[in-house]
Amino acid sequence: MNTAITSCERDALYKVIYSRRDVRGQFVPDPVPDDVLWRLLEAAHHAPSVGFMQPWDFIVVRDEETRSRVKEKFDIANAEAAAMFSGERGEQYRSFKLEGITEAPLGICVTCDRKRTGDVVVGRTANPEMDLYSTVCAVQNLWLAARAENIGVGWVSIIHHDHVRDVLGIPADVVPVAWLCVGYVSFFHETPELEQAGWLPRLDIRKIVHYEKWEKKEA
Amino acid sequence: MNTAITSCERDALYKVIYSRRDVRGQFVPDPVPDDVLWRLLEAAHHAPSVGFMQPWDFIVVRDEETRSRVKEKFDIANAEAAAMFSGERGEQYRSFKLEGITEAPLGICVTCDRKRTGDVVVGRTANPEMDLYSTVCAVQNLWLAARAENIGVGWVSIIHHDHVRDVLGIPADVVPVAWLCVGYVSFFHETPELEQAGWLPRLDIRKIVHYEKWEKKEA
Repeated sequence: MNTAITSCERDALYKVIYSRRDVRGQFVPDPVPDDVLWRLLEAAHHAPSVGFMQPWDFIVVRDEETRSRVKEKFDIANAEAAAMFSGERGEQYRSFKLEGITEAPLGICVTCDRKRTGDVVVGRTANPEMDLYSTVCAVQNLWLAARAENIGVGWVSIIHHDHVRDVLGIPADVVPVAWLCVGYVSFFHETPELEQAGWLPRLDIRKIVHYEKWEKKEA
Repeated sequence: MNTAITSCERDALYKVIYSRRDVRGQFVPDPVPDDVLWRLLEAAHHAPSVGFMQPWDFIVVRDEETRSRVKEKFDIANAEAAAMFSGERGEQYRSFKLEGITEAPLGICVTCDRKRTGDVVVGRTANPEMDLYSTVCAVQNLWLAARAENIGVGWVSIIHHDHVRDVLGIPADVVPVAWLCVGYVSFFHETPELEQAGWLPRLDIRKIVHYEKWEKKEA
């Protein structure tokens, strides 16, 4: 397995990275076969983790009623969020489709069990957030694996963790990190939707790369 | 770009995911060419970001003196960490090689500018940590891209953020998320080093996958 990666294989990785999208509106109801689902979960499980603690759990939700309850929780957080944008920006915010919780046939909740291997973890001593970061690496692995399977993923961040915990019965010391909408799609957008909508532009990479130390850049 | 991914391309992604390692001890001094470095940075820059805020910056450090100063900061945090493991576990901890800061020809510090697009960000309203999580997704993209270029990456988490900030002159409202050691390697380990050392085993994935809601699993 740990032999060299060929240039073709490298280019395949880049193709996946550049064509990955946050999917909200293009889900189709076709079920995700079990063997495909397990490939996504295994890819996530092979993310890097601090002190090899593998703090993640994956809750696979197909039940429609559960997904509807999660959607209601999104609606609560989204109403709060919409109120934070005023004027034209608020109107534009309300026009965005920001989730596909009930349309996608699968929800996957990714959590972080902060007590998994005890209180002291190699590499988590100076930075207690490292286990959460490991869990995010698992999310990103799953996201890229899904794209490679031509499956869309959308990360729903407009939801309160405690609401997710309540709906799924997650214990108090386990942190919900991501609710992912997962399913086949009618198409993948060429570029991020918020870029297309003119909400924000893609940054010029030369403005965010520094040499040797932090350099003050022109805006 | 957004056409279907073929099964060969999919398998290439999985090969990269499964052969990625946290590298500490196998760096060789061969320089990383500029075009390769920029491919890594572009891959990172195409990570998902909450509200398309792209909160990341990348500080590329080649200077040996700067890397030596970072290594000194690691030594401080590592001495603190070693004291937290007692007895046999402490001895084993002290035997681990946990970083390659001065051996790897490149250090890349990845940061998160929490104020980048203003105080209110689409998707960061209920979960203020989402910008940090976006930055971690950029790290994971860079890590996988590096593996696909047959370049090793090690994430040094045993270091205090304020020390990294001091050494690199990072502004107060920008959070250092990762110090990455980056360079070509003599070989990639087949499995994680902490697994090989018997520190912790790979978890059985069936114990961390739940259906429909959190299920209590046997230990």
